[in-house]
Amino acid sequence: MGQPVPTRVTVLGLGAMGSALAAAFVKAGHPTTVWNRTPGKDAELIAAGALGAESAETAVAGADLIIACLFDHASVHETLDPVTGILTGRDLVNLTSTEPAGAHELADWAAQHGIPFLDGGIMATPPMIGQPGSALLYSGSEEVFDRHRQTLELLGSAEYFGAEPSKASLVDFALLSGMYVMFSGFYHGAAMVRSAGMSAAEFGRRAEGWLGAVLSTLPATGERIDSGDYSVPFQTLDFTKAAVDAIVSASRDAGVDLDIVGPVKNLVDRQVAAGYGHESSERMFESLHPPVRPAR
Amino acid sequence: MGQPVPTRVTVLGLGAMGSALAAAFVKAGHPTTVWNRTPGKDAELIAAGALGAESAETAVAGADLIIACLFDHASVHETLDPVTGILTGRDLVNLTSTEPAGAHELADWAAQHGIPFLDGGIMATPPMIGQPGSALLYSGSEEVFDRHRQTLELLGSAEYFGAEPSKASLVDFALLSGMYVMFSGFYHGAAMVRSAGMSAAEFGRRAEGWLGAVLSTLPATGERIDSGDYSVPFQTLDFTKAAVDAIVSASRDAGVDLDIVGPVKNLVDRQVAAGYGHESSERMFESLHPPVRPAR
Repeated sequence: MGQPVPTRVTVLGLGAMGSALAAAFVKAGHPTTVWNRTPGKDAELIAAGALGAESAETAVAGADLIIACLFDHASVHETLDPVTGILTGRDLVNLTSTEPAGAHELADWAAQHGIPFLDGGIMATPPMIGQPGSALLYSGSEEVFDRHRQTLELLGSAEYFGAEPSKASLVDFALLSGMYVMFSGFYHGAAMVRSAGMSAAEFGRRAEGWLGAVLSTLPATGERIDSGDYSVPFQTLDFTKAAVDAIVSASRDAGVDLDIVGPVKNLVDRQVAAGYGHESSERMFESLHPPVRPAR
Repeated sequence: MGQPVPTRVTVLGLGAMGSALAAAFVKAGHPTTVWNRTPGKDAELIAAGALGAESAETAVAGADLIIACLFDHASVHETLDPVTGILTGRDLVNLTSTEPAGAHELADWAAQHGIPFLDGGIMATPPMIGQPGSALLYSGSEEVFDRHRQTLELLGSAEYFGAEPSKASLVDFALLSGMYVMFSGFYHGAAMVRSAGMSAAEFGRRAEGWLGAVLSTLPATGERIDSGDYSVPFQTLDFTKAAVDAIVSASRDAGVDLDIVGPVKNLVDRQVAAGYGHESSERMFESLHPPVRPAR
């Protein structure tokens, strides 16, 4: 047997993330075709060895693996609907940030048109692609995942979450929600210390250390939530209420909007009002009223 | 000269944190007196070598350094007001979680009564006290800080923020706000994935890794905020709006309350509505309307 023929990859969408994905394929020697709706985004990639396509139609023709990394779910359909006929029988991996309902909808659409489909979520920033720490989550067609696993691992670690096409997206969005909320908390703290003349950069260095130190408690926090038993407190809700009330008051004194910390106080207050002040603070989770539902 | 006489330390308040502080002093060989409003909290410490005091009055008499680590600001006054006469001339360090306005008020009260006063914030959980990673922030009397620096460093690193008594508290509360908000984001994400059958413990392991990977961007995020120039986007507000809108929608689909992610959407929406969609997402900070005020 000769050398295996490298997978011909097409990347649709050359924003910061799509460009990073394409660059990783080019670097590994894959014949890589790139396309972007607005022109002029492909110059660097073409200089590195990619083939620039004039249209989405020419971009997908001849590809073994098509990666969509577009602006949003609507732009996925705007791009792919006109070329459905060419996509039939070709492997499609959607790495556009797509919410679970959208991943379902796309999987149904792909099934109707005979397009093997995998949905994915990227847990990395564009500069992290292909570097240690980059993690991608996939769900949908196991055949597509198995066929292209090695190619997909050029982008970062590849984990398959099963045939349910929205599972990877749900985990992705849950982790992203944690990130956006964490950044909002950082903005809040930076606004507080600015009132006393501390720079946001200095606060960033302190927050990186402090939040890094407490992050290691998340798995144990999760275990407590899973147990549903908050009766032996690590830190009581009464104590957390005193702390969060003081944070709200200090934020008001510093002239910082309460948009971000006010809702945290509400999570605490609901549990204390229900009589759980002496229980452990992880019970704040219960304020979000998550329905316990079986996996789809 | 003989050996230096070890500082006689008194710890008022034997909650989880106060007990951890006292244990660190005992372990280092300081004559340590402990007191708690409700009895029965001092047995372990006494077994380790501490002296249990029957009253706050006997606890503070004879101490070189008095550490208050009580439930809240009100309990500091409830404990200390009756013994003001004995405190005069003795060094008092308040490690009770006290908001900036409270630290100011205590400093004024201490000055009126001739009590050298230092306010502090503890960036550690009780098990971290005396371990690497434990950091304590102080402001107020530089003399008290200098006199007891070595003793205070038994608890963790000791940093002095200047004579303004509320500065350490402000930084402390800003970091704590970042922590409580981050945990709320974790609760939100854990509620989302529970709808698909993923345990909170597993989500915690994933969130620890993911948030740990993005934490390193906080100092650069802070630099961007300090510059006030958001014109060259790392990630545009339009992109963040699409992502956060999708998170909100996915959260609703998963049956999770929007209390925590709704306000994040508001921070984004305010900037996009003001015409900044093409600018960098760190501009969300400006939605909190922090007043730029000189340090007090």
